[in-house]
Amino acid sequence: MNFKNLSVCVIGLGMIGGSFSGALKRAGHQGKVSAVVRRDDVGRRGVELDLIDDYTTAIDESIAEFDVIMLAVPMLSMRDQLNALKPYVRPDAIITDAGSVKGQFVRDAESVFDSLSQLVPGHPIAGREKTGVDASDVTLFTNKRVLLTPTPTTSPDAVAVVTALWEATGATVESLDVEQHDRVLAATSHLPHVLAFALVDTLATQQEVEEIFRYAAGGFKDFTRIASSDAIMWRDVCLSNRDAILDSIDQLDEHLKLLRGAIANSDGDQIEATFRRARDARDTYT
Amino acid sequence: MNFKNLSVCVIGLGMIGGSFSGALKRAGHQGKVSAVVRRDDVGRRGVELDLIDDYTTAIDESIAEFDVIMLAVPMLSMRDQLNALKPYVRPDAIITDAGSVKGQFVRDAESVFDSLSQLVPGHPIAGREKTGVDASDVTLFTNKRVLLTPTPTTSPDAVAVVTALWEATGATVESLDVEQHDRVLAATSHLPHVLAFALVDTLATQQEVEEIFRYAAGGFKDFTRIASSDAIMWRDVCLSNRDAILDSIDQLDEHLKLLRGAIANSDGDQIEATFRRARDARDTYT
Repeated sequence: MNFKNLSVCVIGLGMIGGSFSGALKRAGHQGKVSAVVRRDDVGRRGVELDLIDDYTTAIDESIAEFDVIMLAVPMLSMRDQLNALKPYVRPDAIITDAGSVKGQFVRDAESVFDSLSQLVPGHPIAGREKTGVDASDVTLFTNKRVLLTPTPTTSPDAVAVVTALWEATGATVESLDVEQHDRVLAATSHLPHVLAFALVDTLATQQEVEEIFRYAAGGFKDFTRIASSDAIMWRDVCLSNRDAILDSIDQLDEHLKLLRGAIANSDGDQIEATFRRARDARDTYT
Repeated sequence: MNFKNLSVCVIGLGMIGGSFSGALKRAGHQGKVSAVVRRDDVGRRGVELDLIDDYTTAIDESIAEFDVIMLAVPMLSMRDQLNALKPYVRPDAIITDAGSVKGQFVRDAESVFDSLSQLVPGHPIAGREKTGVDASDVTLFTNKRVLLTPTPTTSPDAVAVVTALWEATGATVESLDVEQHDRVLAATSHLPHVLAFALVDTLATQQEVEEIFRYAAGGFKDFTRIASSDAIMWRDVCLSNRDAILDSIDQLDEHLKLLRGAIANSDGDQIEATFRRARDARDTYT
């Protein structure tokens, strides 16, 4: 199958959806690249920015013309979109997504469809704090990783197509088990975001909030940038990957308690050992 | 007094000391700019990089020729350096520093000197994760803030000289109360570093450590970068500003507990409200 001729429809034309469709078009994709958007102006903007060929504002019978459907909406909207697709989508069409939590997406798909053979859950490890169609960037995925988490019944052909599309955007594709994906991403992505939101919220409620932001140093600036990420998207991530995130918070809490104890006891050796371990881990693994 | 003719000696030629002396020289400072270093090769490198005019490897009678002494050593080395300076430093020489914690430095100076009239505690809000003389950058302080925390008995003339020197490096200088400085910096700088070290240490002890670092996404990458900061420097910061840092940890812990509870209860509204507050605070204050 020549994946370049496949027609692709992106559901949701935010930063991720728009970057995906735009990157395909820039790579010379031959098939139609369309979008379903909620707001007409977003669709118009997508055409204007050459991210898509055309768009509709609702999922309807026209969805039957597409070979590949890419869901790029917040995690908790996935199920509604899958339900909306169900009456119209061709049985041989491939359904994939770009959500940050894979277990939830698989459960949603299971609740809607009888077969998951055409379902290829995916997650591009490429985020930015900006949101919306205007934040789309056709180079967003260049040299970034995309993790696919096919289910036991997903067809290898469907995986091959989604892999080829992502590779056309410049990404490197790897496969991972659904549960492992959600556990690892809870640690590397969801927990850091929860922490950043919690830290900025903590400091925002201090008496000296103006001085705090005025004299924000390097470390804190990174946190405030992370905490400017989309609230709805991250709320949905927290709700969708709850248990793995709670585990991660608890593990951090344990380590933070130990470090707090060392500081309270003025135990320089233990503080230094913790700091060195973190530094060494970084040097070893990155 | 023409501050450009003053002779300046930097104690410790790491990234901060080297950047300060090098920036002065680049700004056309007329007086001698020297350093006291522990290792001969560091001094030679400083001359080679045109960061200093010359150097010695110990504090001795030659220190009497300097008008301004800048201590740029880890917090817990400050007291030893002040004791070493005491027999040789001229009574009219100005002593300043670049340490991250000001209360500790003032207490150290009080324990060594009878008068603090020539003492100008200072703190440039410009850090990088790199360390050592080779990480020096003469533009490090350009458009950065330097906070001075003069004591009640510090001479205004001494403050004016240190202000002029920092301004020559390109920095903007502001004055702050010692305690306020330490409280605000505990929140904006020390706590984020402690958190980053704790997070990376937590993840480094997970079974899936290789996957965790392999699939590290945006948020976590910022944390690992912060956690690659110098372990000794940050150990000293924790020991020197213990109480304010413990307060900050406890406040964060409270907010993190609330957020954890909201996630555990799948309380989307509360999660979203917390995330929005953090985002709004960032937008309001930065």
